[in-house]
Amino acid sequence: MADRIVRIVLVGVGNVGRGFLTLMEMKEGVLRERYGLQLALVGAADTSGVALASEGLDPAQLLELKAKGRGVAAYPGAGRPGMAAADAVRRAGADVLLEASITNLEDGQPGLGCMEAALEQGMHVVTANKGPLVLAYPDLAAKAKARGLQLRFSGTAGGALPTVNIGQRDLVACEVHRVEAALNGTTTHILGRMEEGATYDEALAEAQAAGIAEADPTLDVDGWDAANKLVIVANSVLGYPARLSDLAVEGIRGITPQMIEAARAEGKRIRLIGTAEREGEGYRLAVRPTWLDADHPLGRMSAHEMGVVYHTDIMGVITATVAERGPLGTSAAMLRDVVDVWRS
Amino acid sequence: MADRIVRIVLVGVGNVGRGFLTLMEMKEGVLRERYGLQLALVGAADTSGVALASEGLDPAQLLELKAKGRGVAAYPGAGRPGMAAADAVRRAGADVLLEASITNLEDGQPGLGCMEAALEQGMHVVTANKGPLVLAYPDLAAKAKARGLQLRFSGTAGGALPTVNIGQRDLVACEVHRVEAALNGTTTHILGRMEEGATYDEALAEAQAAGIAEADPTLDVDGWDAANKLVIVANSVLGYPARLSDLAVEGIRGITPQMIEAARAEGKRIRLIGTAEREGEGYRLAVRPTWLDADHPLGRMSAHEMGVVYHTDIMGVITATVAERGPLGTSAAMLRDVVDVWRS
Repeated sequence: MADRIVRIVLVGVGNVGRGFLTLMEMKEGVLRERYGLQLALVGAADTSGVALASEGLDPAQLLELKAKGRGVAAYPGAGRPGMAAADAVRRAGADVLLEASITNLEDGQPGLGCMEAALEQGMHVVTANKGPLVLAYPDLAAKAKARGLQLRFSGTAGGALPTVNIGQRDLVACEVHRVEAALNGTTTHILGRMEEGATYDEALAEAQAAGIAEADPTLDVDGWDAANKLVIVANSVLGYPARLSDLAVEGIRGITPQMIEAARAEGKRIRLIGTAEREGEGYRLAVRPTWLDADHPLGRMSAHEMGVVYHTDIMGVITATVAERGPLGTSAAMLRDVVDVWRS
Repeated sequence: MADRIVRIVLVGVGNVGRGFLTLMEMKEGVLRERYGLQLALVGAADTSGVALASEGLDPAQLLELKAKGRGVAAYPGAGRPGMAAADAVRRAGADVLLEASITNLEDGQPGLGCMEAALEQGMHVVTANKGPLVLAYPDLAAKAKARGLQLRFSGTAGGALPTVNIGQRDLVACEVHRVEAALNGTTTHILGRMEEGATYDEALAEAQAAGIAEADPTLDVDGWDAANKLVIVANSVLGYPARLSDLAVEGIRGITPQMIEAARAEGKRIRLIGTAEREGEGYRLAVRPTWLDADHPLGRMSAHEMGVVYHTDIMGVITATVAERGPLGTSAAMLRDVVDVWRS
């Protein structure tokens, strides 16, 4: 049987995008053998501009350019310096947009514009970018549905952890009373190091040196990344159209070694936890440092894990955790979503 | 939009089947609102015989009969005493067979015959019965595929725990190096009670009195239930056509309080663990009592949980656990599968 060729356009060639290109090469045989799929990269966009090639770009060559500090616009014969990403989406003639540009919580751009352009063109959307979903999930989901297109984002709520997939596909007919989520790896790492004796400043500096935390750590340590993920879960799993402004958000900057020690003395651990609690017809959402019992499904996790707990009426309490290092899990989740679009 | 009516025939009206009937009533509104589905029970079979009604049987009335110790054949106007279950499958005119009869590892009957009859009739199959899958998974899966029918069994490997779903749908393009599974709740319960000071015999007797263990506990305590689940995971997730006879199986009868104590002294717990370990082109499968570190994803579980760990190449280590009491989770998994058949 001939393979189905899936034409993709990739927007954003940072850690996650480069991971996807790496997987395209590494998993070429597996994709063909298991799923009968062959991926063709017909376009790519980054801050340098765009590369377009209907016969397909070579992922290895793109990775080489990026390793040399150059952008996709330098791709021989296919580069279009300065062209906007959304134009690449319109011109690439792809079946699916892979959106992996940077999270922008102001206006969601350039990701949001690219996703809207893709849906208008009749393309499925797979995204690892939380910004557009946090700002415009109900609208994007409605547009995709109206056009019979798929909107997939299983990598936006804990890398490879199937947070959204379990919630949407496995908790069928369930009432979800409560969700608890520890989906920000950076704060878990920092709090874990503090349990080993580091101060907050030391643990943060270490995490930054190791590339785990950003130079500007605000998004992580002030709780906004965790809040973004909770908003996505609320919208997509709970069917509750929450916005960031609905959440009470508190980060971990105020956590002291004394607080860590006091928690430990009671057999507890402090973690940054997002919770969604059923309240009337909706949910009450919050992100805050939380004292967890040592046998709580998230309290017992190692500092290298992310996890989510769903409390349900008919399926008990379901917990999923992932231990992964680096951004490859998120890239793998995008690949999962691409295959899923063609399986369903 | 008019609801899609799904006509089902239920074989086996024990704990799991009765749980399904309860959910049919409890979730009628949710099924209609969320999924646009309406379930019609056009047939049911138990050891008394069969009840058939093209206009639908009333789940409440069936539950009432069972509560009185009577069988489905006593259903007024629809009962057919002594009719075989497979004949009910052939005559019911259903869209999907729900198979919840008792696990039989000798020849898989009556479940296997019912499942084959259903596939021959062009019906989808949802089963909570491990026997036919353990004995004939490759054949059943091939028959379903050849006819474009679905074969779903998400409740056979840990109740509501999405063991199979995560493995089949989320670990896309992954190489699974290793699976570890603690999916037999009875042995975990017994070992947990032994950690609290009970002897094996005491813990078993308690579990039997509480209805957690069967009067004949062989299937659980000798490891065969765990082995069945591992065979199903190997076949359906790993694509490895394992049979029960391929497994090294050791149960927990030999576990003494001294062994529990020795493990505890090293900070460990003993649990009955099924493992599948990559070996050449296949997997090496075993079920045995295993000393687990306290921070192992299955070692840290409470005695009320079941869990599975997938070690992968590109998605890290993904663990899922469920805490549920009683058989309702398995019934809920059957309902999930029914809805899934119509969603996909």
